[in-house]
Amino acid sequence: MNQTIETILQHRSIRKFTEQAISAQQLSAILDCAIAASSSSFIQCVSIVRITETDKREQLVEFAGGQPYVASAAEFLVFCADFQRHQQIHPEAQLGFTEQTLIGAVDAALMAQNAMVAAESLGLGGVYIGGIRNNPEGVSKLLSLPHHVIPLFGLCLGYPAQHPELKPRLPQSMIVHQNSYQAELDSVQLAHYDNEVREYYRTRTGGNKETSWSEQITATLNKEARPFMKEFINTKGFSVK
Amino acid sequence: MNQTIETILQHRSIRKFTEQAISAQQLSAILDCAIAASSSSFIQCVSIVRITETDKREQLVEFAGGQPYVASAAEFLVFCADFQRHQQIHPEAQLGFTEQTLIGAVDAALMAQNAMVAAESLGLGGVYIGGIRNNPEGVSKLLSLPHHVIPLFGLCLGYPAQHPELKPRLPQSMIVHQNSYQAELDSVQLAHYDNEVREYYRTRTGGNKETSWSEQITATLNKEARPFMKEFINTKGFSVK
Repeated sequence: MNQTIETILQHRSIRKFTEQAISAQQLSAILDCAIAASSSSFIQCVSIVRITETDKREQLVEFAGGQPYVASAAEFLVFCADFQRHQQIHPEAQLGFTEQTLIGAVDAALMAQNAMVAAESLGLGGVYIGGIRNNPEGVSKLLSLPHHVIPLFGLCLGYPAQHPELKPRLPQSMIVHQNSYQAELDSVQLAHYDNEVREYYRTRTGGNKETSWSEQITATLNKEARPFMKEFINTKGFSVK
Repeated sequence: MNQTIETILQHRSIRKFTEQAISAQQLSAILDCAIAASSSSFIQCVSIVRITETDKREQLVEFAGGQPYVASAAEFLVFCADFQRHQQIHPEAQLGFTEQTLIGAVDAALMAQNAMVAAESLGLGGVYIGGIRNNPEGVSKLLSLPHHVIPLFGLCLGYPAQHPELKPRLPQSMIVHQNSYQAELDSVQLAHYDNEVREYYRTRTGGNKETSWSEQITATLNKEARPFMKEFINTKGFSVK
């Protein structure tokens, strides 16, 4: 359709990178793109911490559960919801609302996706690292994040040293509803999609993994999801009211 | 630098649209781009409700505090965090974690920003509508959103009938930190940015509004931020643990 749409549709998460650096000019353009994203009520409640120190990268690899590309990527950026600036400007600011946590998460992701698409348009690749939320307190200490700042996710960027297959997504018909939410899952479509995912894993792993989407989300949702997160964000002054 | 980066850097929120429709092919490409975004742990916990019915659009204009472009835009999409599908597939799914709310908000925004950039690459414009969170219960009823689904924000898309100036953002130096969070605000930079914002409003309003960023966020954060949101999302099964 056009180059931008082609870039977006060709997205795959890249977890192996060459040693080539991202130039200062490229990085600056990527960050400018991030900052160009919409901001809810112009509140600009996002900070990005760029990690260049090797020992901090290694520590973040561990926090993220041993994802080596956090160290090997040319760039690693940590996206944070940040109301600390606002509180400095206006010490009586009314903070701590759940609404503000939602805004922080949404606005950080709008920025990050601009960065991802910009990077991909330059021939770079990337992957989001939600794993930093395994140890949000550790990440906060490592990066000296003050009160009213929480780390949300990381973003690895670099030149791809792999070209994985496109991972099949749920079809439009299952994600997009018209005027009213259609609660009834279409079992035929779901079965078709489950087969597609199973086939994707079979091909990718040389037959070692054959999991459908339904099986995968069942396994994921059998476990608690970072049950410490509520207390962590409350401690940092988020979602207390 | 390239067309994609140019598109992203030229972003401005568009609130006036021509009557020209978005073709089915264009809309489909935009939605495919949304769906191509990364999904945390492949969990795919986002639904989009496309609103084509005039009366629902009018109702949403009201919920959003009287934003007429919610009705006049060629397309209006409501992005939701959605674990209802997962619960249907796996009735014993462990849901309700704060972590899952964060994932829902982040993943919805990643998808939405892909849609926004794709639309802009086609010569369309758009604006996010956080205002639907003024009345999340009303929106939920109007769109028949079930338990484990919450509306996060809307997205208006259409052909621009205005070309507003670029709104100045905080500079990279205030948003991007290196290795450690720099808590101290640079008052010189902030004053410079405040002037830039004041000048932007003066130009845009023909002198009727002259507000700095600091003044604007002070006014915004003097008020409670949708204090009903915590209870609302809890009622829908989000962030209860």
